[in-house]
Amino acid sequence: MALIVQKFGGTSVGDIDRIKAVAKRVKAEADNGNQVAVVVSAMAGVTNRLIGYVDEIASLHDGSEYDVVVSSGEQITSGLLALALQEIGLKARSLQGWQIPVNTDEAHGKARIQSIDTDRIKECFQRGEIVVVPGFQGITPDRRLATLGRGGSDTSAVALAAALGADRCDIYTDVEGIFTADPRIVAKAHKLDKITYEEMLEMASVGAKVLQTRAVEMGMKHGVRLQVLSAFNDKPGTLVVDEDEVVEQELVSGIAYSRDEAKVTLVRVADRPGVAARIFGPLSDAHVNVDMIVQNVSKDGKATDLTFTVTRGDLKRTIDILEKNKDDLGYEQLSSDENVVKVSVIGVGMRSHAGVAQRMFSSLAEKGINIQVISTSEIKVSVLIDEASTELAVRALHSAYGLDAE
Amino acid sequence: MALIVQKFGGTSVGDIDRIKAVAKRVKAEADNGNQVAVVVSAMAGVTNRLIGYVDEIASLHDGSEYDVVVSSGEQITSGLLALALQEIGLKARSLQGWQIPVNTDEAHGKARIQSIDTDRIKECFQRGEIVVVPGFQGITPDRRLATLGRGGSDTSAVALAAALGADRCDIYTDVEGIFTADPRIVAKAHKLDKITYEEMLEMASVGAKVLQTRAVEMGMKHGVRLQVLSAFNDKPGTLVVDEDEVVEQELVSGIAYSRDEAKVTLVRVADRPGVAARIFGPLSDAHVNVDMIVQNVSKDGKATDLTFTVTRGDLKRTIDILEKNKDDLGYEQLSSDENVVKVSVIGVGMRSHAGVAQRMFSSLAEKGINIQVISTSEIKVSVLIDEASTELAVRALHSAYGLDAE
Repeated sequence: MALIVQKFGGTSVGDIDRIKAVAKRVKAEADNGNQVAVVVSAMAGVTNRLIGYVDEIASLHDGSEYDVVVSSGEQITSGLLALALQEIGLKARSLQGWQIPVNTDEAHGKARIQSIDTDRIKECFQRGEIVVVPGFQGITPDRRLATLGRGGSDTSAVALAAALGADRCDIYTDVEGIFTADPRIVAKAHKLDKITYEEMLEMASVGAKVLQTRAVEMGMKHGVRLQVLSAFNDKPGTLVVDEDEVVEQELVSGIAYSRDEAKVTLVRVADRPGVAARIFGPLSDAHVNVDMIVQNVSKDGKATDLTFTVTRGDLKRTIDILEKNKDDLGYEQLSSDENVVKVSVIGVGMRSHAGVAQRMFSSLAEKGINIQVISTSEIKVSVLIDEASTELAVRALHSAYGLDAE
Repeated sequence: MALIVQKFGGTSVGDIDRIKAVAKRVKAEADNGNQVAVVVSAMAGVTNRLIGYVDEIASLHDGSEYDVVVSSGEQITSGLLALALQEIGLKARSLQGWQIPVNTDEAHGKARIQSIDTDRIKECFQRGEIVVVPGFQGITPDRRLATLGRGGSDTSAVALAAALGADRCDIYTDVEGIFTADPRIVAKAHKLDKITYEEMLEMASVGAKVLQTRAVEMGMKHGVRLQVLSAFNDKPGTLVVDEDEVVEQELVSGIAYSRDEAKVTLVRVADRPGVAARIFGPLSDAHVNVDMIVQNVSKDGKATDLTFTVTRGDLKRTIDILEKNKDDLGYEQLSSDENVVKVSVIGVGMRSHAGVAQRMFSSLAEKGINIQVISTSEIKVSVLIDEASTELAVRALHSAYGLDAE
């Protein structure tokens, strides 16, 4: 008998018929003789409606009361799924975050799970019950309701799987798994059977938002075997596992891209110690996340050009801050460009193989695509290119690394 | 400094603008230097939507999970009102039924409040906070969510007022108070300044459903001063109080009517001991509530006619049961009539005055209205008449007892 945690997102529980379909899927796992805990999101659209109510009342809201309002969406789904499970003959019981309890810190609206008490869940298991847990919820030390922030139900599921020592945590979504590239762009993309936590994290950081980053980090930390699979068909999904479980390691596992990029260039910044800190300090204070950074080698020893990227949503704020501090920073000119995209090749295999970056650069050069900025990590190479070349670049790289399906 | 409990129903908190209006009304009470606890219903329509979800899944549902789903409506309103209060400069905090806790029995869906712990509420008061409590909710001994049944928020408010020893419990509704008769029928009806608990109970039992019966009973038991008033204007409402607070006792306080009546007559039932028990036993077993009962005097000592009333919703079931048991009961004929209405005159003053019933009978006779069944209690006389005469009867009685406004 295995212990499985299943997590169903908002689309999977979007209406009553879908909740009934989820119940059948849970039943299939229970009929295999497994103990099952199910984590559910709010029905699609509910959380947004509740947040809309809050925004209508207060632009700067109290996090504690915000959490009272928005955590109710998951509560509703948990009760409904328990009823649907009972209706098809299973014993089922919902347990709210405060009932378990799922203990969090006090950061309302973006709380972090500190611990999960499993006693009450295990009592349910002993009675032969399937346990339904609303994701996204917890309770603070002073017994106030807390929520984990958007996408928090993934984290709830993985944390629960870790606390229970579950054999697997299945994350049901509206995609079939993790692909070698976005199938809408690359017709020859194929689903990966396995991917490592590290690769999954890098994928998430460059726009392939199938799993919430915190959930992957938690899975990696606690060694929870994750599976990403579709709630709408019965195909096997992608397992997210430790590196040593991936037997035949490909050089590159996937090609990802992110359009949410904007490039900022400061022309002729004074080339002296401390200038980078003076530029990026105010941006950091304003919670602007700076990603890729390139500083050209100074030609005359006096001034240099500095290029970096931010998300498109942060661009206006970034420009405002830099212009306000122009005298202090001492640059000659400020330019920006939103028509850029970041394309990344990701794979743990590149740790032990040279030439991965070189193959990327030459493939892009063959297609006449100009590389504007480069950044690398241990298992990722990213380049910033003209947005118009996105599809061309992703397809070329997919072929170049031998990822095209037969 | 007084301690006031305010309760706002679903229409009063029907959308965000109305919740903001409620916040202003709460502020006015707080600005008078009072401690305030606010009890809120779900936003109009929300509870019905949630019950609809449950019905779509399971016709015979588990009460515990039903309560998980439907109690969320009040949770949402409580958080939103706390935010709206904060937005206009007040300190406010919501406390869910399980946080207080409001302890109930285990009758899910129609739970009864056993006790309310006031420590956490008083802590909030000490911090100068207004406390917002979702009505309708509680927690069972085994720490499951419970709901009190439809209209339960009135009961929550009165129970909270009793537990806190509140100076007053204001029930805000969509009417201005308790009237001497339905103003839609009697143009000269006027609002009562005061009414006794007993009269309020009788009014509720005959269709004037302004306050939930259990809430009035609880108010009477614990001596909670109740006020029924409008959420949509600033006029004073009607106080529901002990009899000794009503100084100038009118003979009759109001005329009420109920259309939800159906008459059943069994012709020539055997006139022997035990036959009434054999007739009403099976109806009671089927949860059919029998109201007025009249047994004619037997003319020949062998058989008699028996007439009684049930709600219209129960009529079909009643007939089925009686027909199934016809042989056992030994009646000759069964007839029924749904075109009847029960009209009642209510007033604690009639305890000490003779002739109240007589004035009712003669007023109706003057208008040519035939009385089909009569029933009386200590402070109420009810008659069953042809439904077509409803308005005529109510207006005639309103005049006959001197209730017409100048």
